[in-house]
Amino acid sequence: MPILVMKFGGTSVATLDRISRAAKRVGREVANGYDVIVIVSAMSGKTNELVGWVDETSPFYDAREYDAVVSSGEQVTAGLMALTLQEMDIPARSWQGWQVPLKTTSAHSAARIEEIPTDNINAKFGEGMKVAVVAGFQGVSPEGRITTLGRGGSDTTAVAFAAAFGADRCDIFTDVDGVYTTDPRICDKARKLEKIAFEEMLELASLGAKVLQTRSVELAMRFGVKLRVLSSFEDNNENAGTLVCAEEDIMESNVVAGVAYSRDEAKMTLISVADRPGIAAAIFVPLSEAGVNVDMIVQNISEEGRTDMTFSCPVDQVARAQKAMQQAKDEGEINFHDLVADTDVAKVSVVGIGMRSHAGVAAKMFDQLSREGINIKVITTSEIKISVLIDRKYLELAVQALHDAFELEKAA
Amino acid sequence: MPILVMKFGGTSVATLDRISRAAKRVGREVANGYDVIVIVSAMSGKTNELVGWVDETSPFYDAREYDAVVSSGEQVTAGLMALTLQEMDIPARSWQGWQVPLKTTSAHSAARIEEIPTDNINAKFGEGMKVAVVAGFQGVSPEGRITTLGRGGSDTTAVAFAAAFGADRCDIFTDVDGVYTTDPRICDKARKLEKIAFEEMLELASLGAKVLQTRSVELAMRFGVKLRVLSSFEDNNENAGTLVCAEEDIMESNVVAGVAYSRDEAKMTLISVADRPGIAAAIFVPLSEAGVNVDMIVQNISEEGRTDMTFSCPVDQVARAQKAMQQAKDEGEINFHDLVADTDVAKVSVVGIGMRSHAGVAAKMFDQLSREGINIKVITTSEIKISVLIDRKYLELAVQALHDAFELEKAA
Repeated sequence: MPILVMKFGGTSVATLDRISRAAKRVGREVANGYDVIVIVSAMSGKTNELVGWVDETSPFYDAREYDAVVSSGEQVTAGLMALTLQEMDIPARSWQGWQVPLKTTSAHSAARIEEIPTDNINAKFGEGMKVAVVAGFQGVSPEGRITTLGRGGSDTTAVAFAAAFGADRCDIFTDVDGVYTTDPRICDKARKLEKIAFEEMLELASLGAKVLQTRSVELAMRFGVKLRVLSSFEDNNENAGTLVCAEEDIMESNVVAGVAYSRDEAKMTLISVADRPGIAAAIFVPLSEAGVNVDMIVQNISEEGRTDMTFSCPVDQVARAQKAMQQAKDEGEINFHDLVADTDVAKVSVVGIGMRSHAGVAAKMFDQLSREGINIKVITTSEIKISVLIDRKYLELAVQALHDAFELEKAA
Repeated sequence: MPILVMKFGGTSVATLDRISRAAKRVGREVANGYDVIVIVSAMSGKTNELVGWVDETSPFYDAREYDAVVSSGEQVTAGLMALTLQEMDIPARSWQGWQVPLKTTSAHSAARIEEIPTDNINAKFGEGMKVAVVAGFQGVSPEGRITTLGRGGSDTTAVAFAAAFGADRCDIFTDVDGVYTTDPRICDKARKLEKIAFEEMLELASLGAKVLQTRSVELAMRFGVKLRVLSSFEDNNENAGTLVCAEEDIMESNVVAGVAYSRDEAKMTLISVADRPGIAAAIFVPLSEAGVNVDMIVQNISEEGRTDMTFSCPVDQVARAQKAMQQAKDEGEINFHDLVADTDVAKVSVVGIGMRSHAGVAAKMFDQLSREGINIKVITTSEIKISVLIDRKYLELAVQALHDAFELEKAA
């Protein structure tokens, strides 16, 4: 039998009623001839309740106990989903992480999957079981203790199962109906994409399109797992949602797939840094150690042995960055005149694998922003992405203008 | 190090605050030089929530999935208790049933404990761990699935650990401060017992003194585990609560230890049953198969080949008993004129191991009830217990009168 993996997030299993609706979708795929592996999250709100108890009990908690407590949410949903399927006369049973066993590293609360043996579940499929319901987000360490996979762990579990079992597809049911060319809340011409390449999805996800966790997309890309994102609140047909797949599975696409943005950016400039070999490391190692997630970096042309160094980071890390830079200066590691923080900026990016073979995307982007009178403060580019920092007040205008310029409302 | 087992029920761990108070008690025993095994129940209300979800999902549920869902409550408390102890700088960790592993039969939702290997936990004690927090009520089947032990499972877990580890004592923390000579709500002279024999406790427990589950007392008796019942809401000294122990550990005791009662009894009489060998089986096998818990049985003297057979059962099983008897009659298994149900009766019992060596307890009991004008409807006796059925309206009067007659307000 071909195997399908279906993953239901917290809002999709928030109540018994929703679990029942999710089970009906699973039932349809069973009727289509699939053996199905269902990955479930905790009922919406449950994980927060459990995390809240742990935090209140122990501010610097033992991650092994945290994992034991927090993993219980998925366990409950898995059992309830199995029971719901059984009520529909579909042979099903639940597995917890340690029962599969989904083997992970010992890095509690942020464990990495090491191995998913398939014999246990495949044997049950062989005996006539149609659905294996697996508690997402969790595994077991070499020491036999429960681990959790950290943020996005259930998406990652789903993709890992799809890879291990050679599933035809991995369907991720969530509260949005797919991946859009941009955020529909700020651009009403935003269009749902039918397909998107892994690489594009990675750029969009890390830029704040919170549909799929980066980690699960990376895993899907590495193992060639076809990922479909679709809404659990709509009746979907075969082509519902957005398929995240390899570039070669997309026949024709726009040069630009989407416009992403991030609102809460800050631009930091170190004025008149003494320029010498190793200065970049002297700046960015302390920032990294202080937990500052530096994104864009621009270095001006050096004049008379001094230069300006500009970088961006999330706005809530500005104080941390300032402290780290002051400390490095006090310790004589670096030397600069001033550190200027501009906390009223936003980042806008255009993303598309088509850029690789099409010139002129950057020129078109800059031209369009200039026509709207939007000043560009920092630019960075990668093979499939161009990002700019602009004043935050122009964010919506910039997104709409770029969406128009690249005609993203039209399918390829 | 000597080992102590401490068990905290649902109300004793209902909130983080109460978990913290329970942890302080554990801390005191650690300071006293014990290695402690803590058995925890689910936070009060959690199990009911989980059971409610299962019942709503699947009226005739797969008990294996029920166990997977319901066992999660204890798992959460165990992790939170371990974290709380760690915050107090007491080396502690949690164990779920399958991690110990507490091996049980495959009788899901009502599994029996088969084995508790001690090496795993003892090794950690050897490494300096002071407290092992174990999720009560749960184990793992030979098939590697989670099992639960059924009603009173956490008490049973605690006693089983105390037996396996040779603990000095097993302290059961609950919401009452011990075992009383009778229910203080209906007799204000009721006195807390300092000690009570296993056999007496068994009779009191099965008669409705809901302090300890029968099963855990049986287990304690079999393995000679000293059980102490005490309140988690009071500061207890060494002699707090009630010690449930072997008869020989009690130097001196009253002839009667306590007066127990059960309010919701029914008296059923089969009028003019054809008396023949095997008639008792022909009556009571169908009742048992129908799930009727028959308690007292009295057979009148047979006259002309016919007799009356009286038995008692819980009042909510009367309809079931009537149906079973009518069916047996219809099938020609038994023959009787009428089945009369008296649903306004209650049972009162006096219990005490002293009865074995003291005559006259029954006489004193009957005499006292007669003085109060209370008619006795059925009598049964065992070695350490005398029970009578009376009209329910006399229940309080009977309990108070018997408590007075045997001077239970005075310690031995």
